Amino acid sequence: MSTLSAVEVTERLKSLPGWRLEGKEIVRTFEFPDFAAAMQFVNAVAEQAESAGHHPDIDVRYNKVKLALSSHDAGGLTERDMRMAEKLKELA
Amino acid sequence: MSTLSAVEVTERLKSLPGWRLEGKEIVRTFEFPDFAAAMQFVNAVAEQAESAGHHPDIDVRYNKVKLALSSHDAGGLTERDMRMAEKLKELA
Repeated sequence: MSTLSAVEVTERLKSLPGWRLEGKEIVRTFEFPDFAAAMQFVNAVAEQAESAGHHPDIDVRYNKVKLALSSHDAGGLTERDMRMAEKLKELA
Repeated sequence: MSTLSAVEVTERLKSLPGWRLEGKEIVRTFEFPDFAAAMQFVNAVAEQAESAGHHPDIDVRYNKVKLALSSHDAGGLTERDMRMAEKLKELA
């Protein structure tokens, strides 16, 4: 899968509120009332990741979860990352 | 709870294989066969964290899980961190 250009990424991010470009990744931090709620979200993300065969980096800081998406095999951001970010919208 | 001295931390780390000091935290990276196994570990850690009321930072990178322990309220490492690291030994 080919990587997206900076212009394409910027365009796609308009419909992905909360996500921002950081280097070759798109990242978003989700905040929850407590650790238990954060972990519930992490498990929902994990399920989506497994079913899509595409795994975000997941950083848990008590009630905050930062996700980072990139297509390491392609060397940057691809359509797969955008699709995964779209799917994660429904979970948060 | 009072923070441990550098000497105390170094002494305690001798019985915590894999853990190392990084600034005001102790960290360890655990590796698993795949993402599903990594997530199983993350959930076991989360359960321990909730029951102890002490939550490590958790970074998931596909099949690798990095944990970081510190007592932010005390401003450094305390006995609580060492006790949690001991408990996590049994899970890995």
